[in-house]
Amino acid sequence: FDHDADTVLPTIYERTTAAALAHEAVNLGQGFPDQEGPEWLRQAAAQALTDPTSGPSNQYAPGLGLPVLREAVAEDHLRRGGVSLDPSSEVMITTGATEAIAASILAFASPGSQVLTFEPHYDSYGAMAALAGAELVGVPLRGPEFRPDMDALEAAVTEQTSMLLLNTPHNPTGTVFTEQELRRAVEIARRHDLVIMCDEVYEQLVLTGPEGEAAPQPHRSVLSVPGAAEVAVAIGSAGKSFSVTGWKVGWLCGSAELVNRIRGVKQFLTFSSGPAFQWAVAQGLQDDRGFFAENAASLSAARDLLHSGLQSAGLRPNRAASGYFLLADISEITALDDVAFCRLLAEEVGVAAIPVSSLTIRHRAEHRDPAEGDPLQKLVRFAFCKRLSTLEEGIDRMVSRL
Amino acid sequence: FDHDADTVLPTIYERTTAAALAHEAVNLGQGFPDQEGPEWLRQAAAQALTDPTSGPSNQYAPGLGLPVLREAVAEDHLRRGGVSLDPSSEVMITTGATEAIAASILAFASPGSQVLTFEPHYDSYGAMAALAGAELVGVPLRGPEFRPDMDALEAAVTEQTSMLLLNTPHNPTGTVFTEQELRRAVEIARRHDLVIMCDEVYEQLVLTGPEGEAAPQPHRSVLSVPGAAEVAVAIGSAGKSFSVTGWKVGWLCGSAELVNRIRGVKQFLTFSSGPAFQWAVAQGLQDDRGFFAENAASLSAARDLLHSGLQSAGLRPNRAASGYFLLADISEITALDDVAFCRLLAEEVGVAAIPVSSLTIRHRAEHRDPAEGDPLQKLVRFAFCKRLSTLEEGIDRMVSRL
Ligand SMILES: CSCCC(=O)C(=O)O
Ligand SMILES: CSCCC(=O)C(=O)O
Repeated sequence: FDHDADTVLPTIYERTTAAALAHEAVNLGQGFPDQEGPEWLRQAAAQALTDPTSGPSNQYAPGLGLPVLREAVAEDHLRRGGVSLDPSSEVMITTGATEAIAASILAFASPGSQVLTFEPHYDSYGAMAALAGAELVGVPLRGPEFRPDMDALEAAVTEQTSMLLLNTPHNPTGTVFTEQELRRAVEIARRHDLVIMCDEVYEQLVLTGPEGEAAPQPHRSVLSVPGAAEVAVAIGSAGKSFSVTGWKVGWLCGSAELVNRIRGVKQFLTFSSGPAFQWAVAQGLQDDRGFFAENAASLSAARDLLHSGLQSAGLRPNRAASGYFLLADISEITALDDVAFCRLLAEEVGVAAIPVSSLTIRHRAEHRDPAEGDPLQKLVRFAFCKRLSTLEEGIDRMVSRL
Repeated sequence: FDHDADTVLPTIYERTTAAALAHEAVNLGQGFPDQEGPEWLRQAAAQALTDPTSGPSNQYAPGLGLPVLREAVAEDHLRRGGVSLDPSSEVMITTGATEAIAASILAFASPGSQVLTFEPHYDSYGAMAALAGAELVGVPLRGPEFRPDMDALEAAVTEQTSMLLLNTPHNPTGTVFTEQELRRAVEIARRHDLVIMCDEVYEQLVLTGPEGEAAPQPHRSVLSVPGAAEVAVAIGSAGKSFSVTGWKVGWLCGSAELVNRIRGVKQFLTFSSGPAFQWAVAQGLQDDRGFFAENAASLSAARDLLHSGLQSAGLRPNRAASGYFLLADISEITALDDVAFCRLLAEEVGVAAIPVSSLTIRHRAEHRDPAEGDPLQKLVRFAFCKRLSTLEEGIDRMVSRL
């Protein structure tokens, strides 16, 4: 386990939040809403805590999670175009998506194996692969639209490859994979005997198109693709779906066999957690009271505001199709790389953001590519899952100080 | 990772709870109170959820945990005879003690290394060692009092040994290690360059002596022993201390260097969890409102009731000095081994309990010792952290049906 590269420091998200606090910068780094989640959801959890006759007790939840939440996850998945899942064996509740990712990688990546993913990628994939003794191999998303190149993905498969880590809707690019792309991924996994872990935590956060029209690319779960059942698990997150990132309630869905393998690891990572939260989230999935649509609409508005603000500051942002983040190309306004630019941004401009190269395999010392031309060293990730007033303050600072 | 032995099945605790439900047996297996934790503690968490202006938000807690809880853990540790800990770097909040155990083992056990512990032992030690590619090596606790034999421990150290997993107060034996025993452990660790992970989750649950007098052996944290700082981390649990096992709030204390190594792993297992719970637990540690003393007194009474009940049923229980469990020797009343006896107990008698051999290294196929004489195959663990009426029902069934 490469402690120097992966685990001597807090995560890039925590370091950025710390820098934001230290420099009184507007925090557009770590992806969490700067508002509380829905009041009725929090009330439901509070009620479960104080009046356990109404819900679960304050003692251990079952290792797979509360049955009522597993049923709600299965129903919600089906309602949104997924497959029919047996809540007794094909759904497992986890301590956030983070634990589902960790347990999946520990279950299916072994020492000497390779794990494939698209770059840039969520930071825990690399750290968990290293912890399993495996190597994370990256295939860059392509072009200004950050599309997955499925031929390049298949070309990167070796005898050692044991897993594909997919992420749709994608952090940090916002790319929503098409059904065709997911079909290709499943074919590749079946042909080469790989397990797919598909991180779908932004599934409820698909945003509007450029002129406010409907999302050009709706989310499809990997599990909805023919042939996925034997090879794929999908991961979801109540923290992301309901804007309560602190609750750390996630889930993992797939065949009983794959879920059981991952449960075997998960049960020794945390055993189980947060029955009151699980109970509230079950109610939220049964009836979201319009929250998902409202949230997607307000995130779309926030994205649009930040998008034009960054343009006014001379940066070239993408118009993220989903999620919490957009990526801005900094090469027009600076010769600095993304890491140096983010430092300047926090210290001199008063805005904290994430250098995209820290979300690549190249950021690790042994893979560092000093080549000037690496496009991933010219991108900065900005979070728009913030109040409009927060975004406006950040934009003002950038427009006036950059 | 030995999936067959460790992770194909749910944990022994879950299997026992499932068997209890299936046979409508009184559940004296899994260690959780069958009552809710203190009302004021649950109210405090509920308030944090619904009125975040009063406490933490519902978004991510810091990776190390809320500062207010880290401070409360440090103060409580010092107040009870521990050392002075810097809450900014020497205390980390985890998703229950389970996550602290998992992260510690993943941080310090590497493929091919050996990890030493006393047997019987908590089940996750073996599973996590296997997941790290390491071998768990067991040294039996000695005699009817289940004392640790420190000479035997040192004799079991090899070139490959990297960690000592201690547990005091001990599950399942109730043994509270003496200061002298802890000093020896620290000496051994320093001499052989080992890291000590000391699981102290029952630290607040030291019970009265035989005639109701004060506890014969108070708990000492490993960290209070001279020279421990360089080699040892100690793990605590709000779930155990406050009878809210479902909350999964734990902590790990030690030098900044050791805590930082473990944080590096922990941040990718769950990142962080349960800010509202953390906030409530901080208040509970600042002022327990007499709960710890009350809880120890009622657990002592429960232990005494179960102890005499088991004697009436012809078993020979120990008088556990701490924790949730006592061990009963079954050899007087049956020729069955512990596993077969527990099956009969659940199915025919209507009481669920844990066979102690499942808490040993021998239970794994490659270590199984068919020898008749293994004393750990004649012991059954009964939980007394239950309402007196629950215990009475279990005792009635055993007295009349055994
Ligand atoms: C667990 S902190 C990271 C939050 C997040 O998902 C992100 O910023 O990408
Ligand atoms: C996490 S379930 C196990 C509970 C427990 O500590 C025990 O029964 O020993």
